[in-house]
Amino acid sequence: MPAPSVSYSITIRLEVPSGGSAVSDLTTVVEKAGGIVTALDVTGSHTELLGIDLTVATSDTDHADRIVAALRAIGDADVKKVSDRTFLMHLGGVIEVATKHPLRTRDDLSMIYTPGVARISEAIARDKEDARRLTVKRNAVAVVTDGSAVLGLGDIGPYAALPVMEGKAALFKTFADIDAWPLCLDTHDVDSIVETVAAIAPGFAGINLEDIAAPKCFEIEDRLRARLDIPVFHDDQHGTAIVALASLRNALRVVGKDIADVRIVMSGAGAAGTAILKLVLEAGASDVVVCDIDGVVHADRPGLVGQLGWIAEHTNPRGVTGTLRDVIGGADVFIGVSAPNVLTVDDVEAMNDGAIVFALANPTPEIDPALARAHAAVVATGRSDYPNQINNVLAFPGVFRGLLDAQSHGIGTDVLLAASEAISATVSDDELNANYIIPSVFHPEVHDRVAEAVRAVASAKR
Amino acid sequence: MPAPSVSYSITIRLEVPSGGSAVSDLTTVVEKAGGIVTALDVTGSHTELLGIDLTVATSDTDHADRIVAALRAIGDADVKKVSDRTFLMHLGGVIEVATKHPLRTRDDLSMIYTPGVARISEAIARDKEDARRLTVKRNAVAVVTDGSAVLGLGDIGPYAALPVMEGKAALFKTFADIDAWPLCLDTHDVDSIVETVAAIAPGFAGINLEDIAAPKCFEIEDRLRARLDIPVFHDDQHGTAIVALASLRNALRVVGKDIADVRIVMSGAGAAGTAILKLVLEAGASDVVVCDIDGVVHADRPGLVGQLGWIAEHTNPRGVTGTLRDVIGGADVFIGVSAPNVLTVDDVEAMNDGAIVFALANPTPEIDPALARAHAAVVATGRSDYPNQINNVLAFPGVFRGLLDAQSHGIGTDVLLAASEAISATVSDDELNANYIIPSVFHPEVHDRVAEAVRAVASAKR
Repeated sequence: MPAPSVSYSITIRLEVPSGGSAVSDLTTVVEKAGGIVTALDVTGSHTELLGIDLTVATSDTDHADRIVAALRAIGDADVKKVSDRTFLMHLGGVIEVATKHPLRTRDDLSMIYTPGVARISEAIARDKEDARRLTVKRNAVAVVTDGSAVLGLGDIGPYAALPVMEGKAALFKTFADIDAWPLCLDTHDVDSIVETVAAIAPGFAGINLEDIAAPKCFEIEDRLRARLDIPVFHDDQHGTAIVALASLRNALRVVGKDIADVRIVMSGAGAAGTAILKLVLEAGASDVVVCDIDGVVHADRPGLVGQLGWIAEHTNPRGVTGTLRDVIGGADVFIGVSAPNVLTVDDVEAMNDGAIVFALANPTPEIDPALARAHAAVVATGRSDYPNQINNVLAFPGVFRGLLDAQSHGIGTDVLLAASEAISATVSDDELNANYIIPSVFHPEVHDRVAEAVRAVASAKR
Repeated sequence: MPAPSVSYSITIRLEVPSGGSAVSDLTTVVEKAGGIVTALDVTGSHTELLGIDLTVATSDTDHADRIVAALRAIGDADVKKVSDRTFLMHLGGVIEVATKHPLRTRDDLSMIYTPGVARISEAIARDKEDARRLTVKRNAVAVVTDGSAVLGLGDIGPYAALPVMEGKAALFKTFADIDAWPLCLDTHDVDSIVETVAAIAPGFAGINLEDIAAPKCFEIEDRLRARLDIPVFHDDQHGTAIVALASLRNALRVVGKDIADVRIVMSGAGAAGTAILKLVLEAGASDVVVCDIDGVVHADRPGLVGQLGWIAEHTNPRGVTGTLRDVIGGADVFIGVSAPNVLTVDDVEAMNDGAIVFALANPTPEIDPALARAHAAVVATGRSDYPNQINNVLAFPGVFRGLLDAQSHGIGTDVLLAASEAISATVSDDELNANYIIPSVFHPEVHDRVAEAVRAVASAKR
């Protein structure tokens, strides 16, 4: 059973007798059942009865049900209502539209709307670039998905994807003051997705593609980048790549190796894996071997369709073949964006001294990080309950802030590299160690630093 | 020259000597030039100099330029900067995204975003109607245009349409607490508009079509209504129709006539005209004659394409022919949604006693309302500078509030009629007179009353 966490937190409203041990019994019962009491609020006090709101972190919904059952079994306690804090938070959504000016009088109306707004429209009709100055376009990003590869949940469709895109919009606002609106598309067709995004583009200064399945995500992004005059960024690819490269740079600082000299083995050639690979090569890596479900990618392997052809051309300089097991020996770096438990303890032991293991499969990594740590010098995962979380949230707010501020018409590899370097540099030499290669998403400066680095690169190109 | 208005308001920053008559000279000069000083703020005071922000309502941009030139001509005054208040208000847009919960800690993040949000997604994947409960969809409306018929400006395209759609979103929030987001489409093609709106529909509980040219607006609305499970409302048609019918009902109350008995002559068979016609017929009108640029619509007229065929079938029971001039005699009601100055004073004089004239062409009505008022009992226009403004803003916020609250899957004529009746009923018998047939958009109850009436009708159908 995973450790209790706030993402499975429930609040139980109950009544207990005000005398005796009833209140302390509550905490005892919860703890015996493996839950953690994070708050106990008295909501009402009477001579005979106490009203209590008990907030409890649990491991999952079954665990929550067991804890509630245990509380009901206390003779004295009367369970009135159980609320799930995460569901409460999402009731009615987590974002809303706000007006920047009060609209209380005819004068307000005549400036914000008709007839005054006609003059704003006329100005933009004369020069459409004025839309970046005189409308919300300046600061607006569309968060677009078709719901085909949402988190670890797969193809759950546009409706079920909406809370994730909304959450993402909330992160955009919180970390970079960007006005992002979720657009969940009722189509899985490449042409239709491209046409829809192109159609809605005028009102936005950037497009964040999200949770669109590979391989169609590559074609969609390529076609939109060719067609639109605003940046298009597939976060699952490039957000992950930026943060993975930033983490790799700092892990190499910890072990004192240079990216140009190390042997890197990757597991996974999907959207994120391919993007990480490309950025790591751009950053100077020279010896990368990629494995997928069919083993090592090499030039003579049959069936090298799509991205695999590109990968075979640009990796594996020593021409090795076989399986992950056959090529992991002597490697300096393992980067997994593939499947649970594909890496064994023996594999890690076979790696070079000062081994770096990034096990990014979510929620279950390629190897239990505690086991990996026994032999590897640095371990990172995609999970928030271990050190060194490789989390896209470190990248996308600052990347778009920089692009919007530069009024950028596109996005190139130079932007991705600049963002990655900014994240690495946030960890000073004093702070750097094997358990701190990457800052927290709540680091007070990281988003501003990423924005500043991206703005500098993007502005220079205009 | 039109009267000075706040929608052409400028703020002039200047410095004048602190002694003598310089400050009062400013006001004198502005007034001589035909402007109105609406504010004079001292921004800084020194022994020798005063800093002044002078806010002036002007008639148009040329007039504003003349006033600034007159101020510059005062020997003592030093004009530092001229700002246009409407442009200042639209800088960076008039709406933004807000988060409903603070996102300050890992716990917040794990509930609003990953991993907690996955459980919200799973719940919606099991029952997609839960998206109306657990996401912003519950309260979200897309304000969609292709920019083909924006205000009186015509086909100015999606970029120039954006400030109008944003203004509309601000009205939705202010008057009905609805989260509306503008989508300005980079296409003028009917199929493409339909496909785009259908694609983005999952994240919204309603679609407000806006400023899309006739006749394609009819087909777009029909096809989207057939396809989507959320209400689709073309405001230029139905918003105008709701408010026009509400005004007509009250104008008839003023003159003591019944809608079933009166002769109505309409000028204009575009989007708004056709929608008003249909709603007036639904409300019981029996004798309506419609004129367009080719004269009276009747069954034998050649070239009755599109809506004109429907109009010929459902109007003109006496089978009259000719021009507007030929049929206006003896009419009780004139409703114009056509072109400037198509109605003469003689035409109004030829109407029946207690004539009602709605001259809704914007910005120049079918007849100067002051001239019409000489012979008509009740006159209304689309302008804010005469009594009885027929303004869509009275309808759309409450209509959508009611539809969203009812979680409505569509919208029917019953909803339009209910909204119209609610607006009429806001004017009590005590308040009703020839210059007050319709409440202000700032009426404290009108939007709630419309919402309540719509909710009742829409909920009854679920």
